[in-house]
Amino acid sequence: MNKYQRIILVIMVCFSVFSAEARELNFPVPQTVSPEWQKLIAAQPAPYWNTHPANIQEWKEWISNFNKGAVKGLSELREQLGVTAVQSKMGGVPVWILTPKDLPEVNRDRVLLNLHGGGYVLGAGEAGMQEAVLMAGIGKFKVVYADYRMAPDFPYPAAVDDAMTVYRELLKTTPAEKIGVFGTSTGGGMTLILALRAKTENLPLPAALAAGTPWTDMSKTGDTYFTNEGVDNILVSYDGWVGDAARLYAGKHDLKDPMLSPVYGDVSGFPPTILTSGTRDLFLSNTVRMHFKLREAGVPADLIVFEGISHAHYHMSPKAPETKFYFTELERFFERNLQ
Amino acid sequence: MNKYQRIILVIMVCFSVFSAEARELNFPVPQTVSPEWQKLIAAQPAPYWNTHPANIQEWKEWISNFNKGAVKGLSELREQLGVTAVQSKMGGVPVWILTPKDLPEVNRDRVLLNLHGGGYVLGAGEAGMQEAVLMAGIGKFKVVYADYRMAPDFPYPAAVDDAMTVYRELLKTTPAEKIGVFGTSTGGGMTLILALRAKTENLPLPAALAAGTPWTDMSKTGDTYFTNEGVDNILVSYDGWVGDAARLYAGKHDLKDPMLSPVYGDVSGFPPTILTSGTRDLFLSNTVRMHFKLREAGVPADLIVFEGISHAHYHMSPKAPETKFYFTELERFFERNLQ
Repeated sequence: MNKYQRIILVIMVCFSVFSAEARELNFPVPQTVSPEWQKLIAAQPAPYWNTHPANIQEWKEWISNFNKGAVKGLSELREQLGVTAVQSKMGGVPVWILTPKDLPEVNRDRVLLNLHGGGYVLGAGEAGMQEAVLMAGIGKFKVVYADYRMAPDFPYPAAVDDAMTVYRELLKTTPAEKIGVFGTSTGGGMTLILALRAKTENLPLPAALAAGTPWTDMSKTGDTYFTNEGVDNILVSYDGWVGDAARLYAGKHDLKDPMLSPVYGDVSGFPPTILTSGTRDLFLSNTVRMHFKLREAGVPADLIVFEGISHAHYHMSPKAPETKFYFTELERFFERNLQ
Repeated sequence: MNKYQRIILVIMVCFSVFSAEARELNFPVPQTVSPEWQKLIAAQPAPYWNTHPANIQEWKEWISNFNKGAVKGLSELREQLGVTAVQSKMGGVPVWILTPKDLPEVNRDRVLLNLHGGGYVLGAGEAGMQEAVLMAGIGKFKVVYADYRMAPDFPYPAAVDDAMTVYRELLKTTPAEKIGVFGTSTGGGMTLILALRAKTENLPLPAALAAGTPWTDMSKTGDTYFTNEGVDNILVSYDGWVGDAARLYAGKHDLKDPMLSPVYGDVSGFPPTILTSGTRDLFLSNTVRMHFKLREAGVPADLIVFEGISHAHYHMSPKAPETKFYFTELERFFERNLQ
């Protein structure tokens, strides 16, 4: 083979590799969604998706960098939406109490507990707060944002232990009928796990749950882990940082333990639940499998799947009309189901 | 380049083409669904998906062959489920009246109108009846199955004209509050179009609509026309027979006319609606875009997305537990919303 033929071969090999890749990632951006969402959908895959920290130190550095980026714009957003954030502790767990300036009378004695996302590694401090701010600001609810402990320093079950501590503290002042719990991704999974734990601990269950694209199966089980791999531009693949984070938090525990993967739990008696995902979401199966399980158990379970979006996009563009729609849907949902 | 190098090049080219293909089609079959559904999901793409009849004669031959296959097993299914089918006419439109042997007292004066699927070309005669039989047999409702006219002989608006004729006939004996309408795919689209038409004709709207993976956008608009292309093993691609059928039925009419693509219609005042799809469904976007539109308009709209399945799989395996679940959900939905 001469030099030119070798070059042609190299080009062919590249083509064979990248054509498959291109087919996954170069879908047209739907023109029926808002310009703001089109921008999210058109974005390149998150630059950090294939991060694989080799040790605890590398995890901490990566987490710290991510969190620094995530807090940017948060205080502006709170200001725009007229949300005040007061730092406090509940049962020793750091929390922020978010209050909209125009809290409706009917919501004065109601409270929503927010569990943020981030794969049990990201979102510490304020970094996971955007969804909570939008819910307080658009939905006009008082939101308690729990800054629960995470891996690598605090593996399973620290995160849910902290969520339960805050929930138990809330129950001291607010009846369960006036408490809702919500969260996205890991926070959506934790929302469902909190209800499972409340059952096992014979606590009254929250009146309503909103689990956005919840991580209901931490093992690589679920159709869209495969069909939406490379289609989702946020998580991109289970085999990126996501799977590593699962193993880091779970340690030696079975990834299919219901306290890690609530889709395997007993959801009978759950309160009304609303679940949300997108057509490109890597966690679409995590969402719809849970929805099916809840409906099978007779739980009133509602589902929204947004056109074109990837994992958790729905709270990433505060000014998009669909984002406003989403939080208005949550507002109506809690309004209907909280006493 | 010598002979062997040429062979290598051909192999590379094939690899580059088929690797992209393989990546689309060889996703693992989810093990969390029933064995019956696993079989549907594992099936090769429908052998006829890329049929492109060149003229009316070829259309008719293809349609006739398809329909012959589709009626197989139908009379057995009716027998198993204790459903009797009586042929009749309503306003000149051929119909079958399907009655379960154990019709509950509460459903005696209620009726469901079924509009079958098939891209406005397939399913004539009994060929589109499976869903209607399952609804009558599992859901225990009286079902009127409308054998509406279709392309190529009867293009737009013949199909919906016939559906409207049957609906108007039903209104003569049954108040709208006791009528539900349901259908899958084209039949799901027609279910929604019927409600739009009823509005323009100042007819009372049906009490409830069930639109399974509805064809709400006949133009190639919708994210999963792209992201689920080759992932769905029933329709496979808009660029197969589906797009041809759209143009055959629509003729010179704009594919985005709401009477063809109801997602562009004014759905305010619609009755409660339930929509269904699957994670691999080519029409997942058709389904969720409509769901979003209904919710935006304040219509109580429910959504089910099944794990792993392609277009309309949910009524193709009558004995699967998820199939039973689906028709039980529809039963509950109509039970709740019909007077």
